[in-house]
Amino acid sequence: MGDAADDIVSATYRALCEHGYADLTMQDIADESGKSKSLIHYHYDTKHDLLCAFLDDLHDRFVETVDGVVDDHDDEGAAETLRAIYIELTTPTDESKFPGFQTALMELKAQAPYDEAFRERLVGFDEVLETHVEAVVADGIERGEFRADADPEMVADFFVTLLLGAQSRHVTTATDPETLRTELDAYIDARLRSVEGST
Amino acid sequence: MGDAADDIVSATYRALCEHGYADLTMQDIADESGKSKSLIHYHYDTKHDLLCAFLDDLHDRFVETVDGVVDDHDDEGAAETLRAIYIELTTPTDESKFPGFQTALMELKAQAPYDEAFRERLVGFDEVLETHVEAVVADGIERGEFRADADPEMVADFFVTLLLGAQSRHVTTATDPETLRTELDAYIDARLRSVEGST
Repeated sequence: MGDAADDIVSATYRALCEHGYADLTMQDIADESGKSKSLIHYHYDTKHDLLCAFLDDLHDRFVETVDGVVDDHDDEGAAETLRAIYIELTTPTDESKFPGFQTALMELKAQAPYDEAFRERLVGFDEVLETHVEAVVADGIERGEFRADADPEMVADFFVTLLLGAQSRHVTTATDPETLRTELDAYIDARLRSVEGST
Repeated sequence: MGDAADDIVSATYRALCEHGYADLTMQDIADESGKSKSLIHYHYDTKHDLLCAFLDDLHDRFVETVDGVVDDHDDEGAAETLRAIYIELTTPTDESKFPGFQTALMELKAQAPYDEAFRERLVGFDEVLETHVEAVVADGIERGEFRADADPEMVADFFVTLLLGAQSRHVTTATDPETLRTELDAYIDARLRSVEGST
């Protein structure tokens, strides 16, 4: 991506936080980027194209984040890595620090049934997360830390659904994702941790 | 609620399914109800008032549904009741059979951070569910079916978050909530079921 295109995508992020998805105009993005609407249209034909580029950029950073957490906690075992993923993705970061951001993302998610390009990209986020969690669980089983009868794919599906539920409740009803961590630990200990395994 | 007000709320449901939240107009609701816009305005000052009445009506039916499931499965034990709640609320019913309905509800949820009246009502749905699940878990502990070290409030928070996550993934990425049931069963068995308890 060129510098100008890069700047426009960053401006889209800020404009989304401020205006939300439903009211977002190309003019808002132009104002936020300090560039003309015609320059923006030179790079992106439509607002929809720009939002897809924005989701692609967000996806790249999401992959980096998840890769980073898994690498950082790899030597602490699978249970600690799962905990770290949960904490990382339910704690406000650079991308999500503005309250408007998670809300705008939820508005985009609500459009997914009508919009294949959005839906494909949103599925991509879930797939990255599921693939990583599945690998962590499989690794935990291989090392003997997790029970051999745990199915990595099913555990990943369960964990990702819980995590997305926690994120969505945080936006909708300001529920604190931290209160869930005690029961998540209980699930990991009772369901996943092998009796002989210890970390 | 009078008959006319009732009809208007039902028409709101159908209009939401068809048009979604963002594009919904009082005229759409008038068209759907076969009543004049002025009659609708006689009952509800604003679209927002009407949507709040719609959520209140939905809430009443939600309470009936959850009460019904708990009553129907009471004698099968706590684990079966939790399973039945999950199945009931992730399987399309009269209220949710139109694909547009869950999407419209998600659009309303995305508005919650900006709209206190919506947020209060959405919190109300979660509270009904949490209260019921908490009671089921507490009952399971009392009967000796569930482990005494399970905290009903934390289990309810965990279960409700998982269920809402499954509903939201179903809307956004068409993920099938049924595939999650195997791991939910594993959680119930490993984390909740007491070693001596049997159903």
